[in-house]
Parts: sequence; C-alpha cells; structure tokens
Amino acid sequence: MTSSHTFTVKTQGFNDTHDLTPRVEEIVRNAKISNGIVTVFVPGSTAGITTIEFESGAVEDLKKAIERLAPQNMQYDHDRRWGDGNGFAHVRAALLGPSLTVPVTNGELKLGTWQQIVLIDFDNRPRNREVTIQIIGE
Amino acid sequence: MTSSHTFTVKTQGFNDTHDLTPRVEEIVRNAKISNGIVTVFVPGSTAGITTIEFESGAVEDLKKAIERLAPQNMQYDHDRRWGDGNGFAHVRAALLGPSLTVPVTNGELKLGTWQQIVLIDFDNRPRNREVTIQIIGE
Amino acid sequence: MTSSHTFTVKTQGFNDTHDLTPRVEEIVRNAKISNGIVTVFVPGSTAGITTIEFESGAVEDLKKAIERLAPQNMQYDHDRRWGDGNGFAHVRAALLGPSLTVPVTNGELKLGTWQQIVLIDFDNRPRNREVTIQIIGE
Repeated sequence: MTSSHTFTVKTQGFNDTHDLTPRVEEIVRNAKISNGIVTVFVPGSTAGITTIEFESGAVEDLKKAIERLAPQNMQYDHDRRWGDGNGFAHVRAALLGPSLTVPVTNGELKLGTWQQIVLIDFDNRPRNREVTIQIIGE
Repeated sequence: MTSSHTFTVKTQGFNDTHDLTPRVEEIVRNAKISNGIVTVFVPGSTAGITTIEFESGAVEDLKKAIERLAPQNMQYDHDRRWGDGNGFAHVRAALLGPSLTVPVTNGELKLGTWQQIVLIDFDNRPRNREVTIQIIGE
Repeated sequence: MTSSHTFTVKTQGFNDTHDLTPRVEEIVRNAKISNGIVTVFVPGSTAGITTIEFESGAVEDLKKAIERLAPQNMQYDHDRRWGDGNGFAHVRAALLGPSLTVPVTNGELKLGTWQQIVLIDFDNRPRNREVTIQIIGE
C-alpha cells in the first residue's frame, strides 16, 4: 500500500524549527498500515528535516551548531551572483538534507520517547512549506 | 513484502561506533527478497546511523570531526535546563540523522566493498540501543 | 512494484558535484509508477548524495563549507595507516551520507523548482561512480 499526504507549515526562516511529529502520527494512524516506512520530505533548497528532542534548550544548541557550520555573516558566492542574501540557507539545507525515513511497526512510528521529527527552515524570510509524507507498507 | 526486525547493540557513548553490516546482511538474506530497500533506524535522540569504511583510522577521523562540530566541553542550553550533561550528544545526533536507506538488488545490500553501515552512540553513558531494520521489496 | 536501475557518472574527486536530476527523472518516468518513493544511493565510502540549488554559486559555497568540516590539509589517521591520502574524503562522505529518498506523486519527483539531486565525489582522484536508483510504488 502506498499513500501520499501533504500539509503546510508557516515558517519564519533563520533556523525556525517546527515539531512535525503529531501531524505525521495522525497521518500514519489514518493510513491504517501496521508495518512499513514513512518518508518525510520538504521540497525546496533552503529547509531540512531531522530528529531531535524537541525542547527549547536542545533546539537552541542545534541552531548554534548550524550557525557555526555556515555562518550568516560570511560572504557567499550564491549571494554575489543572485543577490538573494540566503546563501547560508542553501549550504545549511544541503548539509542537513530534506528527507527522513522512519519505520512504522504495529501501526506506530518507531521513534524514541524523546525523539521528535522536525522541520528547520533556513531561509531569510517567512515561507509556507508544504511537507510531503509518503507511506509505504501493509 | 514488508518485514520488520530489531536487534540490540550495547554501546559506551562518546562516539562509540559499531559496524552493523553483518547483522543487517543476515536479516536481508533471511527475508529472502531479491529487490527492494532496507531502512536502518535507531530510535532515540543521542545516536546516529551512517556509512564509513570501518577501519580504526577513518573511524577515529570521523570522531574528531564530530567533536569539532559540537565540542563536548562547550556550554549547552540543554544542560543548563536539564542537567543531563549530554547536550553535545543531542546536537551531534540531529546533525548526523537516525536513518539510512540502502538498496537491495539480487538479494544483497548494494554497499561498496569498503562501505559499512555504522551506529554511532553520542550519549555520555553506556546504553542498550535497539536498532530497527525495515525491509520493503519483492 | 519495485524496480532497480543504475547509471555511471565520471567524477574528478575533490568535491566534484554532479546534477543527477535529469537521469533520475527519466528513470522515474520510464518506471511508470504514479505514487511511491525513489532512493538514490551511491555505493562507496568517499562520495555522498544530497540536494541543492544546482547553480555554481551555491555549489561553490557548499564545497567551502565541506572543506571547513574536514579540511584537506589536516592530518588524518586513515592516511597514517593506509597512505591513501583521502582521509578527508572518508570523513566528508560519512557526514553527508550516501542515500536520499524522494517521494514520487502523480508520476513526478516531488522536488522544489530550485532543488536538484546531486552526487558529490570527495575522493582525491577521478572515479567512475555507479549510482543506484531504487523505485518502490504503484
């Protein structure tokens, strides 16, 4: 069985981080599969998907590490060519990646208790992100 | 065909790195699929999954790079709030990611000869990690 | 439905970056699935797969960030043991990862307009990389 779902997240950019877990869980429950995988994907080149314990301390620590990886106040070739001012966002998104695949067993996402699925928006302005949830299983 | 498997790995934390390839290969062989994908997933927010040439030099080099990404001796907001002392582990796990999907063709994992699937435990104490292996194919 | 495909990319190493999107799109179109997922995987421990806006500025910015993560001119334990001189490539590949899973909906890859699938070869010499494309869907 394959099923496809989308929902929209309003984001503010600059590492704005959203917990997607409740919405992904609801979609998995409604899909009524007992065993399979779920791929969580964000189209676009300035956002990423990963997991973290979604509490403000750990999220803040991750934002600081991402800032060290690709600082906002560096010179970026992308900005010199296109004037977008979001070169840092493209680099961050490419390093983190737009895709996460999570097992489903007994109808439930196989996450740890303190592990949430998050969308991080790296862009330099508010966006509406359409997240795609792809379920494969039986 | 979908099938789900788990096994446990005893880990020591602090970037402790384990080669999962033999166990994943055995599970794939027993599942008797010829073509499909395998998702290797570690539940929890302080461990990650990737591939590397599993020899002590390359593994040591990776550990040093991870230490540069999120040094153990920095101040972490997570630790200030919760006193866990493992803020560095949460950041490392979020950057590396908990999931890896590998193709299976002709009944075999499609890895390079010098490419092994590894679990890295970033936590600051020994853990028993239950790894989930999800196979989809025919 | 499961189908498996490969193609070869000639690479130059040292972060040489190739847009795989047209070839992956063609494979998906020929597979005639309307809904599912595609896993893009590079066997080997010195290359990686991610997405980026494939324009020379953003690609150059990503290369510089990767150079900061694992500089070429550092000492690597892998090189001390094996004399390969590509220790930096192993670390880069392990951090970026060899696998990317993208949803397919209505017969099309669910990528953003400015989001391309790329292979980055981190090795220190030219290679022929055989990329595996695994499609699951209906």
